[in-house]
Amino acid sequence: MNIQQPRVRPVPSDLIAAIKAAVGEKGWREDADALAPHLIDWRRRYRGTTPLLVQPASTAEVAEVVRLCAAARVPVVPQGGNTGLCGGAIPAEDGSEILLSLSRLNRIRDIDAANGTITVEAGCILKQVQDAASEADRLFPLSLAAEGSCQIGGNLSTNAGGIAVLHYGNARDLVLGLEVVLADGRVWDGLRTLRKDNTGYDIKQLFLGAEGTLGIITAAVLKLFPKPRVRITAFAALNSLPAAIELLARCRATSGEAVTSFELLPRIGIDLGRRYIAGVVEPVAERRDYYALIELSAAANGDGLRSGLDAALAAALEDGLIADATVAESEEQARRLWFVREAIVELQKFAGVSIKHDISVPVSRVPAFMEEAIAASVKALPGVRVVPFGHAGDGNIHFNLYQPEDMDSDPFLRRQPELTRLVHDIVRAHGGSISAEHGVGRLRRDEIGLYKPAVEIELMRRIKQVLDPDNIMNPGKVV
Amino acid sequence: MNIQQPRVRPVPSDLIAAIKAAVGEKGWREDADALAPHLIDWRRRYRGTTPLLVQPASTAEVAEVVRLCAAARVPVVPQGGNTGLCGGAIPAEDGSEILLSLSRLNRIRDIDAANGTITVEAGCILKQVQDAASEADRLFPLSLAAEGSCQIGGNLSTNAGGIAVLHYGNARDLVLGLEVVLADGRVWDGLRTLRKDNTGYDIKQLFLGAEGTLGIITAAVLKLFPKPRVRITAFAALNSLPAAIELLARCRATSGEAVTSFELLPRIGIDLGRRYIAGVVEPVAERRDYYALIELSAAANGDGLRSGLDAALAAALEDGLIADATVAESEEQARRLWFVREAIVELQKFAGVSIKHDISVPVSRVPAFMEEAIAASVKALPGVRVVPFGHAGDGNIHFNLYQPEDMDSDPFLRRQPELTRLVHDIVRAHGGSISAEHGVGRLRRDEIGLYKPAVEIELMRRIKQVLDPDNIMNPGKVV
Repeated sequence: MNIQQPRVRPVPSDLIAAIKAAVGEKGWREDADALAPHLIDWRRRYRGTTPLLVQPASTAEVAEVVRLCAAARVPVVPQGGNTGLCGGAIPAEDGSEILLSLSRLNRIRDIDAANGTITVEAGCILKQVQDAASEADRLFPLSLAAEGSCQIGGNLSTNAGGIAVLHYGNARDLVLGLEVVLADGRVWDGLRTLRKDNTGYDIKQLFLGAEGTLGIITAAVLKLFPKPRVRITAFAALNSLPAAIELLARCRATSGEAVTSFELLPRIGIDLGRRYIAGVVEPVAERRDYYALIELSAAANGDGLRSGLDAALAAALEDGLIADATVAESEEQARRLWFVREAIVELQKFAGVSIKHDISVPVSRVPAFMEEAIAASVKALPGVRVVPFGHAGDGNIHFNLYQPEDMDSDPFLRRQPELTRLVHDIVRAHGGSISAEHGVGRLRRDEIGLYKPAVEIELMRRIKQVLDPDNIMNPGKVV
Repeated sequence: MNIQQPRVRPVPSDLIAAIKAAVGEKGWREDADALAPHLIDWRRRYRGTTPLLVQPASTAEVAEVVRLCAAARVPVVPQGGNTGLCGGAIPAEDGSEILLSLSRLNRIRDIDAANGTITVEAGCILKQVQDAASEADRLFPLSLAAEGSCQIGGNLSTNAGGIAVLHYGNARDLVLGLEVVLADGRVWDGLRTLRKDNTGYDIKQLFLGAEGTLGIITAAVLKLFPKPRVRITAFAALNSLPAAIELLARCRATSGEAVTSFELLPRIGIDLGRRYIAGVVEPVAERRDYYALIELSAAANGDGLRSGLDAALAAALEDGLIADATVAESEEQARRLWFVREAIVELQKFAGVSIKHDISVPVSRVPAFMEEAIAASVKALPGVRVVPFGHAGDGNIHFNLYQPEDMDSDPFLRRQPELTRLVHDIVRAHGGSISAEHGVGRLRRDEIGLYKPAVEIELMRRIKQVLDPDNIMNPGKVV
């Protein structure tokens, strides 16, 4: 990989001393044991080193650390819950960068139920934000597998997706205001709590999804929603891939935006889940290559919702779109159906190594993409186990390739560049994206240049140059 | 006003000749009659001049015109339907700028119902986009008074709001992709049709709401939604201003996001409407100072919606929040209730001159803002008729001051700077915005500097500088 070489000079000892003084003794660590979990990513793909882990307790302390680093032209790598999948929060290997954890900025600063807003610091765990909203009888809809440990600052910096995007949008869409420490250590207070504000360029959009390369998000104002009173979960065995898209269209025609999740799951994923993970039920009697997991939710009386879904599923059965379906009759049954999906994430620990692709295409192109990409993968590597699953309602598929049962990990992983290129070229042919919700980080930094117009890469670089002229904000990531 | 002086040199005649050659004879006008409607804004507040109105027929022609202008360093002012309220589409007074109309870029390029997207050129009339969506059994939810003549490119460039923001968001939230002609005449093709794409900075956000100061939007991919099957319209007489916010909270608790509009209307507006405009009904029997116009909509069976609203209104009556309410029993009655609201916009032509403020505050602060701003206005100018109305569900109030019955227009308008400062300072005290949905243009360009952090203005200027270094894209507007 062609990672940009950061400055090779070591971090000056007087800078380290100044940072320590600025944050106080609770605000830094340099012992190997404390540093270790911060220096490797969740997927164990990137390892870095750093002379100092800084853990500021306030926005003012973050600003002071950045100001000191800017003066010394030493890079700063911000880190949240370190659950990212693209290596965006891991410092360089050569120890030339300060690692700045947002963990101690973990206060809920304000909640205004009537305005539908919550103001949180970057280090708040996503679950903590969800819970605070729930206590105010509101919903904060961002939800994803790492929600018990990821931090909201990281969610915003990577524009996280998850299981409720179909209705509520991506993390970006949930933000009304930001507080950001800029590359020169100044603080931009853009913590507006307004639904409408057309007083100039929407500066906050630059920092959302920028993975800390333009500034460090220290706090945010997030939108809250009415809490759903009714949730209905269904599972259907599909007779074909195009049937998935037709079923989605029919559910939305009947139930509109009450369709909050529409997940596509492959038979092979359920089989592997049942093999490796306890508690994975057989969701419906009929076995098919693909299944849909559907969730509807609404604040109002849900009678019409249930009867509408029942009618849509009955018609889909009659018309041959699906072979079988079940609608959960209890929360426990709904939980079991969702666990089938969660197991397909979980089994990654047990079913051998995998080559992952977090892609999106237009929703209407999902079946064609899937058919072409599976055929091409199997042709390139006979025996490869293709386990594509994910947020079909958003056109977002986690197109994961597992090693053939009779192949070792190393030779399989050596095929990664070729297999990834194959899959991503098919993504491009369908007008898709090679990173739908995981971001760029180090993993896709060079690759995006292959799939984006040159003028767009140039615009990104010019934005980076103007906001971070000395390239000290998380260098070597994204752009 | 401190409008930045554009270059005073006249537009070179060889540039004009080159532009004419580039766009062909249907692509330009220079006769006074053809130019006249393009040189004054809808509110007749700004008048400009130009040596040439260019009407390119394609993105390539727009790009060529901008390329020629960039080479000659002559400014270009893009114009859509010319329905803006802040003078953003009117060229300078000195004739130094080329006026570029997007009207001939008016094709619907594509519609993909299964993906929920429509690809439109900038010159499409908003109504044309709504109709095309409707024919595909989908909803394009942007809706505002000028929808029969405003163009979608202008809507996106001003991040338009309107009556459905509460549920569907602002224009910005409805965009998946853009095609933009940059300041050097290159075209950025960012026409993605994806719900999720995390491959770097979200460049399109810069051009949305930038009023043509960073580039010219020539086409866009817009989100479509399931078409509502049920709409319920209600009108309630409020016993107090805080009751409006409590009623909104209760409606959302019962009906969730089915609450698609929540408009606040003052008694004085209804009285003036009934005095000047035929067909304005008395919406409910009880007379109060303020009323709420509420619309619920949903794709599914609406039985639960109607019974939920009935129950919420009955409880609000019982609890003393409202004095009276009606729920429309027919589309005709719903239309009549909405016409009461439309008349409050319309009466601006008849009820004397007015000083307008398009402000927003947190929804929870609307009552306090209204009370303080009305008291301050009446104290500053006894007899002033305050007619505040608008999208209370978004915290967006059109806080309009009409001249006292016994005062002439000119002395009233001379009080504008003082009255506006008074109102906007109260907006600031409540954490609000001085331009919620209308934009900045020339009207608020200098004023935003009073209400935004200096660092934010500086960031805006740096963005402008890097994307338009010669300041030829709609100079003197926004920043």
